[in-house]
Amino acid sequence: MANIKPSLAKGTRDFSPKEMEKRNHIFNTLKTVFKKYGYNEIQTPTFENLQTLTGKYGEEGDRLIFKILNSGDYLSKAPEALLTEKASNKLISHISEKALRYDLTVPFARFVVMHQHELTMPFKRFQIQPVWRADRPQRGRYREFYQCDVDVVGSDSLLNEAEFVLIYNEALAALGLKDFTIKINNRKILTGIAEVIGKPELIVDMTVAIDKLDKIGLEGVNKELLERGFTEEDVEVLRPIILLEGTNQDKLASLKSVLAKSEAGLKGIAEIEEVFAYLTSFGMSALLDKVVELDITLARGLNYYTGCIFEVKTNEVAMGSIGGGGRYDDLTGMFGLKDLTGVGVSFGADRIYDVLEELNLYPESSAATTQLLLVNFDPACEAFLLPVLMQLRNEGVAVELYPAAVKLKKQMSYADSKGIPYVLLAGEEEIKSGELSLKDMRSGEQQKLNMEALIKYFK
Amino acid sequence: MANIKPSLAKGTRDFSPKEMEKRNHIFNTLKTVFKKYGYNEIQTPTFENLQTLTGKYGEEGDRLIFKILNSGDYLSKAPEALLTEKASNKLISHISEKALRYDLTVPFARFVVMHQHELTMPFKRFQIQPVWRADRPQRGRYREFYQCDVDVVGSDSLLNEAEFVLIYNEALAALGLKDFTIKINNRKILTGIAEVIGKPELIVDMTVAIDKLDKIGLEGVNKELLERGFTEEDVEVLRPIILLEGTNQDKLASLKSVLAKSEAGLKGIAEIEEVFAYLTSFGMSALLDKVVELDITLARGLNYYTGCIFEVKTNEVAMGSIGGGGRYDDLTGMFGLKDLTGVGVSFGADRIYDVLEELNLYPESSAATTQLLLVNFDPACEAFLLPVLMQLRNEGVAVELYPAAVKLKKQMSYADSKGIPYVLLAGEEEIKSGELSLKDMRSGEQQKLNMEALIKYFK
Repeated sequence: MANIKPSLAKGTRDFSPKEMEKRNHIFNTLKTVFKKYGYNEIQTPTFENLQTLTGKYGEEGDRLIFKILNSGDYLSKAPEALLTEKASNKLISHISEKALRYDLTVPFARFVVMHQHELTMPFKRFQIQPVWRADRPQRGRYREFYQCDVDVVGSDSLLNEAEFVLIYNEALAALGLKDFTIKINNRKILTGIAEVIGKPELIVDMTVAIDKLDKIGLEGVNKELLERGFTEEDVEVLRPIILLEGTNQDKLASLKSVLAKSEAGLKGIAEIEEVFAYLTSFGMSALLDKVVELDITLARGLNYYTGCIFEVKTNEVAMGSIGGGGRYDDLTGMFGLKDLTGVGVSFGADRIYDVLEELNLYPESSAATTQLLLVNFDPACEAFLLPVLMQLRNEGVAVELYPAAVKLKKQMSYADSKGIPYVLLAGEEEIKSGELSLKDMRSGEQQKLNMEALIKYFK
Repeated sequence: MANIKPSLAKGTRDFSPKEMEKRNHIFNTLKTVFKKYGYNEIQTPTFENLQTLTGKYGEEGDRLIFKILNSGDYLSKAPEALLTEKASNKLISHISEKALRYDLTVPFARFVVMHQHELTMPFKRFQIQPVWRADRPQRGRYREFYQCDVDVVGSDSLLNEAEFVLIYNEALAALGLKDFTIKINNRKILTGIAEVIGKPELIVDMTVAIDKLDKIGLEGVNKELLERGFTEEDVEVLRPIILLEGTNQDKLASLKSVLAKSEAGLKGIAEIEEVFAYLTSFGMSALLDKVVELDITLARGLNYYTGCIFEVKTNEVAMGSIGGGGRYDDLTGMFGLKDLTGVGVSFGADRIYDVLEELNLYPESSAATTQLLLVNFDPACEAFLLPVLMQLRNEGVAVELYPAAVKLKKQMSYADSKGIPYVLLAGEEEIKSGELSLKDMRSGEQQKLNMEALIKYFK
């Protein structure tokens, strides 16, 4: 076989050591915060039975799921008719029974249902794993990307919602972000608005339209509302609601009067107020003035959410949302476990990666990299340095001896490319005197140290 | 659609919080050691172009690779003849162009070749990722499992080999293992033996046979040698070599005389001696007496290795090898980059998991879990505890407030099932006095603490 020029599968990426360090910085920061709030990690397999995933993401979603071809003589049981007709779609279930994870939500629902008798409720889990979608790859959109989900099921307390606000706030601040907005809405408020207009059956059309306010403006939203079955009168009623302004308190007050006759609407307002009250009790009322913003145009996968809805964006960089989530009351219903409520949020790791890159927020040196390179001048030098190497490692220092006595320049450029901050030079003179030269690669400064001082320096 | 009873795809596993903690303990321990020796993490995508993987693992391997069905109308370009003939095997390349990673080695080779102009040699990387094989699942064998590989390419120094012995020793000791053997051999010694017998062309047959000594005994090995083209005379010559006994020094001395006329054989011996000399210079000669064992029956994927070969087993539990590796001189040749030498080892994470389980070596409580549960008695108690919760979290303590005022028993069993070591009880009395009751869940003991003392206790 001729050698092939190797390439990556379309829409996938390698991660170099430097990229891994940055990605791990993000993941570790998130994990630390999740754990502090009592969330534990789980993982589910890369592939699921195809029928576990089919029908959960709509028709478009089904198309974008990567299917795995059955092993062995996979065509033996395939109906002849489908083969001769080249019925690609109908043939799938005959030649594929497994598929790659499309998101973390459906596998989590499967996990909860399968393990329901082992789990103590409320069950608080986080999950950071890749997912795969057969989307057309484009700038910033990959076929393999990571999702970071944190969810609690089996508790209807709005304390959970309030804590997700704190988790977002703490995690993003820990990553170095200084100006971000956590938008909050409640599905019941949207229900209330549709009721007040007298078109509860058009709630999906309404929310799809007003969700676009940011993108197409009020004119566009109104046009779309008319196309979707609302009258000029309805649009008039909706206008002040869509354009709701002022502080969160102002908005809540207006909504209370607008939705006075909708039970659902008032329930939604009360839930938002309770979340805000929790934040105040936490001593975090400042968040309500600056960071948390009630936005009744926020919808996100509406079919899914039943209570509070969240979305997070940074104000420092132009970028879509970097996180979102909400409460759902029937996640596990698809697998036959009814009435289990849950609430969760996710972090968009790839977008956060780009944001931190643009704002230059990665810590300059992390404990991950080698701290010190021992330069290898010749066999005598190497022999002298082997016990030094051992001693430093015994003290927990990440240290390398260059494995060959090549030119100094080559060894220095190795240190440079790996971002190693210090280099130890032990030439004949240094070995004789026991005073070794330590060079700071950033400042270029050199100092003489004996072994004891050297170990102390790195400890 | 009717609800389906959810199940896992065959041969895959969910990992619960407790299992994740144990797995992360293993991975984190390995990563810390790898980094200390100057190895950096990379990751490659879950799927590769099918042609990157095909032909790299032999015919059996090709069969066991999971192929991904092309998206969209994947049959449109499939040759009619193959469909009507139901030629499963021949059709694959027409309907699938991607496949799941089968190991970490081939993707690493692809990575090195693709990024050769960005990498500074020697390039030291580790990689901890799952791989997939369409094997028949059985006890301890899964279709999705993790590999942990650590390799250096672009350096022929035997310092690397010596450091892999140190890495094995340090990592396994850090995991709590007390008695393990690091077997070492050298492909050149095997070459030398085949040369001395006068059948260099039968080296593969020879090594396949003597590799089985542990399993089928000397009789079995001899029988197999005869079947594979060796004469009774050859078997006589081989016997003392196979049964080589004594210290490493004894074995090396015997081999030197047996292989005196084989250049390759002597080179192999010299390489082993150099690795041993490095270990002695490191001040680790004790390893040569107890842990490192020259075993010339050790072969492992022979086609692959060109120099030193390693295999590690624990002596505390009956279990196959928990690690192995060696030097290869043509890893990247398959992708057109010739003459790049490398050496690496891997750790069998799933087997190590079982070993630590059996020996009860997991640390009892890790920083990963919630340290403290605040019991929720009633709304007044909750209101009192919210700022306490905030304060403790500000100090970095992992702490939860139970999100509803349910029965104490239920809250205690929640703490118990999550392995939360402490519970705080703040009833009416406690709130009034400011002296809160802290219960140690393991001992059952209770003590009274004010806020200041509480924070100090957990800090």
